[in-house]
Amino acid sequence: MYNKGILLIISGPSGAGKGTVVKELLKEEGKYCLSTSVTTRAPRPGEEEGVSYYFRTEKEFKKLIENGSLLEYAIFCGNFYGTPTKYVEQQLSEGKNVILEIEVQGAIQVKEKYPDAVLIFLTPETIQDLQDRLRGRATETDEVINMRLRRAREEVGLLNKYDYVVLNDLVRNATERINAIVETEKFRAARNLDFSEQFLSKKGVDTNA
Amino acid sequence: MYNKGILLIISGPSGAGKGTVVKELLKEEGKYCLSTSVTTRAPRPGEEEGVSYYFRTEKEFKKLIENGSLLEYAIFCGNFYGTPTKYVEQQLSEGKNVILEIEVQGAIQVKEKYPDAVLIFLTPETIQDLQDRLRGRATETDEVINMRLRRAREEVGLLNKYDYVVLNDLVRNATERINAIVETEKFRAARNLDFSEQFLSKKGVDTNA
Repeated sequence: MYNKGILLIISGPSGAGKGTVVKELLKEEGKYCLSTSVTTRAPRPGEEEGVSYYFRTEKEFKKLIENGSLLEYAIFCGNFYGTPTKYVEQQLSEGKNVILEIEVQGAIQVKEKYPDAVLIFLTPETIQDLQDRLRGRATETDEVINMRLRRAREEVGLLNKYDYVVLNDLVRNATERINAIVETEKFRAARNLDFSEQFLSKKGVDTNA
Repeated sequence: MYNKGILLIISGPSGAGKGTVVKELLKEEGKYCLSTSVTTRAPRPGEEEGVSYYFRTEKEFKKLIENGSLLEYAIFCGNFYGTPTKYVEQQLSEGKNVILEIEVQGAIQVKEKYPDAVLIFLTPETIQDLQDRLRGRATETDEVINMRLRRAREEVGLLNKYDYVVLNDLVRNATERINAIVETEKFRAARNLDFSEQFLSKKGVDTNA
C-alpha cells in the first residue's frame, strides 16, 4: 500500500486560522513537516540557511524559476518567495506529509503541477466569523480588513478547485479533520494502482507495505 | 456543510470478507443502512416485502429496468436482482449512509450512473491470502475456487475505476478505515459547492465596502 507522504496544501481566506492549525498539526511527532521556502530577502538575525529559508540572490532565484525547480512562487514587498520542488519530493519519498501553507492562487498553481497534492480550503463557517476574527486581531485597519473580506468572497468562489473544505470552528476539530483526511487519502485507489502487482505476487505478505 | 448520506459501494473479490465487514458496519447505530433489493425470486418463509426484498414479477422487474428505476441489476440462477434508485435516494436524503455490497462489474455500473458514490475495493493483501480464505470456507470445490481466483486477477486490474482500496487484514481495521473514509468524504469540496452561499449569507457584512 501507499507509503509515501502526502503533499498537503492548507489554504483559505486570510484570518481563517491557517497558522494556528498548522502549528497544531506539526505537534504530531514525525507525521508532518513544513516545506522550507527559498527567498531573496536578507536573513534576519538568528535565521539559518536551510532551516528558516534557503537564502538566494534574485539572479539565483530567477534561475530556479527558469529551471522549473519551484512548485510555486510569489512576490511580496519586492522579495521573491518560492517552494523548492526537490525538498518537497525528498520529504514525501521518506513518508513525511509535507504541509504548504500558501494563499489560494498559489495553491491552485501547485495542484495543477502536482495533481497528487491534497488541497484543503480551511475556513470559518461564515464571512461574519471571518470579520470577527480579523477585527479581534486588532492589528489591521478597517481598510485592510475590508480588502481581506473582499478577497475571501472571491476565494470561496474557487472552492471547486479544492479537494476538501474544512471548517475551523475549533482548532482541535480542524486538526482532527485534517489528520483523518491525510490517513484516508493513503487508501485512495489512484495512489495504489501498483497494488495489483503486490496482490498477485504469491510470495506472501509484504510487511513493509 | 454536506448533510446527506454517502452511497457506499463495497465490492472486491469473492472471499474478501465483504459480508463480515458489512455486518460489522451495520452495528454502528443509525449510521448505515443496507439497500433493499428488488427480486423476481419467490419469497422464502419468513421473508417480508420491503424488508428482505421487494418481490416483483418478471414483467414488473423489466418495467423497472425500462423506466431507469434501478441503479444496477443482475441475473442469478434465472432470477433478477436489482437496486431501486428511489429507496437509495430517500435514505441518502435522510442523512443515512447506504451500503451496497455488489460484485465489481455492478459496482462500476453504479459509479457511472451515480458519480457521488464512493467505491471501495475490499481485498485481502495477496491472492495467496484470498486462496487461503476460500479454502478455509471448505464449501467450494477446487474448480470453483480456481474460477474465483481467476476472477480476482481480473478484478484487481479494475482498481483504477475505484475510489479507495481497503485491506481486510482484520475486520476491525477494515471497518475503521471505511468509517474514516465515509467521514472525510463529507468534507470533499465537490460535495460542498453550495458552501460559498452559506459562507456569504450572513447579514451585516458589507463585503463590497
